[in-house]
Amino acid sequence: MRYVAGLDGGGTKTAVTVAEESGRVVHRFSAGPLNLNGQDEASVKATLHEIAANVGHVCEGGLGACVAMAVGAAGISNPTVSGRLTEGLREGGFAGRLVLVGDHETALWGAHEGPHGMILIAGTGSIAYGRNADGTVHRAGGFGHLIDDEGSGYSIGRDLLSAVVRASDGREAPTVVTELVYARLGLSTVQELVGFVYAKERNKADIAALAPLLSAACEAGDASALRIAERNALALVDTASAVAEALGLAESGELALLGSVLLQSSQVRAAFEAGMAARHPRLRCIDARRDAAHGAMLLALSEL
Amino acid sequence: MRYVAGLDGGGTKTAVTVAEESGRVVHRFSAGPLNLNGQDEASVKATLHEIAANVGHVCEGGLGACVAMAVGAAGISNPTVSGRLTEGLREGGFAGRLVLVGDHETALWGAHEGPHGMILIAGTGSIAYGRNADGTVHRAGGFGHLIDDEGSGYSIGRDLLSAVVRASDGREAPTVVTELVYARLGLSTVQELVGFVYAKERNKADIAALAPLLSAACEAGDASALRIAERNALALVDTASAVAEALGLAESGELALLGSVLLQSSQVRAAFEAGMAARHPRLRCIDARRDAAHGAMLLALSEL
Repeated sequence: MRYVAGLDGGGTKTAVTVAEESGRVVHRFSAGPLNLNGQDEASVKATLHEIAANVGHVCEGGLGACVAMAVGAAGISNPTVSGRLTEGLREGGFAGRLVLVGDHETALWGAHEGPHGMILIAGTGSIAYGRNADGTVHRAGGFGHLIDDEGSGYSIGRDLLSAVVRASDGREAPTVVTELVYARLGLSTVQELVGFVYAKERNKADIAALAPLLSAACEAGDASALRIAERNALALVDTASAVAEALGLAESGELALLGSVLLQSSQVRAAFEAGMAARHPRLRCIDARRDAAHGAMLLALSEL
Repeated sequence: MRYVAGLDGGGTKTAVTVAEESGRVVHRFSAGPLNLNGQDEASVKATLHEIAANVGHVCEGGLGACVAMAVGAAGISNPTVSGRLTEGLREGGFAGRLVLVGDHETALWGAHEGPHGMILIAGTGSIAYGRNADGTVHRAGGFGHLIDDEGSGYSIGRDLLSAVVRASDGREAPTVVTELVYARLGLSTVQELVGFVYAKERNKADIAALAPLLSAACEAGDASALRIAERNALALVDTASAVAEALGLAESGELALLGSVLLQSSQVRAAFEAGMAARHPRLRCIDARRDAAHGAMLLALSEL
């Protein structure tokens, strides 16, 4: 029996799916994060060794029976990152075929159970990606939180904080966003808020973590929150639309919606779907069929 | 003869104006920057000692004849900052009255040759500030580049970079901003641009330094650039308008326009003035009458 494995390496955990060469899944498990741009070289290696060992355990015939592995992770186009991943898995005893791709690639494979179709991810960051039947790929967005990624959790969190300071000095009407943000962060003044935002230890995930507050503010009918939802949704429409147009899929394609913003913020999701329907009436928005670890496994399978 | 001195402490230099108590200016000079949130404690002290010595030289009767000094600098509400400033000037031998205020306060005094009126500053950051005849003050904006400061040089620089990446993947039409930014930074691909933006050593001034490219792009009639000018100008209208409304000056006030964006980007300036005229037809936009060092000197004089 031959096996393949798919890895979805993320900042909080790595999801792994192991399947027989028939495609039948035999095991799923999670391991530690793959912080490939982080400092903890040793823990990344330990995670990769542990994954190799676990795959070996569930394959009849041991790790040698696993003939292909695909790994999706952010930043993998960096040769240092791909080199460290390869080294870690080889040291762990994996000797089969190894395919390293960006996490949007494995998300696409999972969402559509294959290499064709489009995905829009709006999580901490945002990106659209797709491949048509000709094999042409296109990506839009995903240039990071400082100059791009509108529609992402970071963008929404930043917009919520901006709404608080704008309401504080009269540029905007008072907004319930203020009390929601203050309650979440345990603050009570705009000075404290500024202290929070510009603290040295602050990172983009801290800002993105505020995004879920948008829903409650929208449900309260707050004008500022509704504008934020609308603006971010329309930015996501631009992003997805650019991919659909570039691939000739605007009239016929399927777009899978992924990421915490699209899955959890019903207002952003609704505004996005309305915006897409207005621009591309025949394009269908769907939920992902499978997760990225499953997608990675299918990609590994396609390499046999 | 008694004298007063005004200091405008900035990140690149400190401008100093010394006057007789009649208000007649007797000397102006520049000294080093006051990097009050920086590490170079020794150079800040050296600058303050040098300033005290220079003031002493130009006052008949020496530094003892200088009876009041006002200093405007960013971040001065921080007690550590004000403590270090005070200590440096006292060690330098200054024994007169010392007034420490934010740099927007001295800018206001300079722009209007007194404490009343409004200013809008759009430089690396953006802020509006004013004081009415009742002595009520109001400020809007100025909450920093991450969540605020639309209309600032940072905001415009970021929008230009965003336009480049958006044009690169088809979210926007091709824009001359791309070639202007690439030429300025010596880059030729969007990957290199991303490398520039997220480099560890990058700071907000590097991004703000791109803002002057907006003018050339607007002059070429570039749609993306014209949108950036318009959006940032309207954000500045919101900021200035909030101050005018809060102070009851929307129908009668004078607003002085300051900072590199308003002084050098004719398109932003024009769009701003048009937006203000539409919202507050009777409010007058003017150029600053004097600089912030002169303003600080006038503030010092008012303390006699």
